[in-house]
Amino acid sequence: MDHEPSGPIASLMRELGKLPGIGPKTAERLTHHLLAAPRGRVYALADALRAIKDSIRQCRQCCQPTENELCDICSDPRRDGSVICVVEQPRDVAALERTATYRGLYHVLHGRLAPLDNIGPEQLTIDRLVQRLRAGGVQEVIMATNPTLEGDGTALYLSSLLAPMGVRVTRLARGLPSGSGLEFANSQMLVDALEGRRSF
Amino acid sequence: MDHEPSGPIASLMRELGKLPGIGPKTAERLTHHLLAAPRGRVYALADALRAIKDSIRQCRQCCQPTENELCDICSDPRRDGSVICVVEQPRDVAALERTATYRGLYHVLHGRLAPLDNIGPEQLTIDRLVQRLRAGGVQEVIMATNPTLEGDGTALYLSSLLAPMGVRVTRLARGLPSGSGLEFANSQMLVDALEGRRSF
Repeated sequence: MDHEPSGPIASLMRELGKLPGIGPKTAERLTHHLLAAPRGRVYALADALRAIKDSIRQCRQCCQPTENELCDICSDPRRDGSVICVVEQPRDVAALERTATYRGLYHVLHGRLAPLDNIGPEQLTIDRLVQRLRAGGVQEVIMATNPTLEGDGTALYLSSLLAPMGVRVTRLARGLPSGSGLEFANSQMLVDALEGRRSF
Repeated sequence: MDHEPSGPIASLMRELGKLPGIGPKTAERLTHHLLAAPRGRVYALADALRAIKDSIRQCRQCCQPTENELCDICSDPRRDGSVICVVEQPRDVAALERTATYRGLYHVLHGRLAPLDNIGPEQLTIDRLVQRLRAGGVQEVIMATNPTLEGDGTALYLSSLLAPMGVRVTRLARGLPSGSGLEFANSQMLVDALEGRRSF
């Protein structure tokens, strides 16, 4: 008989191993850490996990996860409601918020168009975005989908859908990543940087 | 106002960020993954976490985590009860079991002597190891503490404690790590390899 850890330990390793970036070795290390951790800390983690499923829903307006009907951003009167930044995922909102530069609102698509994976417009929150524009007051929609084939395709689809609605549709700039060097840039970055060049 | 994710999301990031090897970035990525994951999977993880605290205790004999009074290894009649391998942590048992080479029993110290951290013999499961030897039937105790200063110190302390009990005390071999090259070995590995050299 090969010794395998009994029930609950094996279950925890298996569940941890399903998380992205956590392989069997890391799952084992984390499990042993948690076995030795104070009961209160492990309970706190278990409770936090249940809480995100029990008390988090999508913001009625921008579709990002929130505890309330409207998220903190949509309910903040100091945000500029005339601009909507469209992103693929909630984590993209977090990344943009960290810049403390953008003062408009967001719209989270919860994915991108991916015909090969059978993800079409109806799988995303595009209907709700269209409703927001119909409700009026929006002057600009910034496409902030990922700079990938599918992200670009999604932005292109949306821009042709939204353009007839009398709203300005823009997209994030492409170019060299700040802080890096030319030698590390791939061809597409250099092409973007050349095409998007600006006068001093 | 800087936007911070509201209550439960921030809690989960904080709790995940307390795990070893999981920094703020990874905690954020995992949280967003779990927000999008099916409710059942997140519940399964939460339940597995609670279960290791609710239903796991230490094996009465070898002190490794188990659901039962005796762990799977101690209760397996095919294991050789005359040999006990002493390790620091439960994960060391798992590592040794993966080799499918050792057929004796284990004893988990749950740490190593570390005077600087105020960890003395009474913080480890040394009493229980002595009791096992007093109960008789043990012929050999293999020291498999980590090849570190504190692990070696613990093994030395134990060997002087156990030697008068009429039991053979051995320790794991030191030498070159299989699969590596001489050029990558540090001086201590080479010293160990020379001192432990064997005839063909």
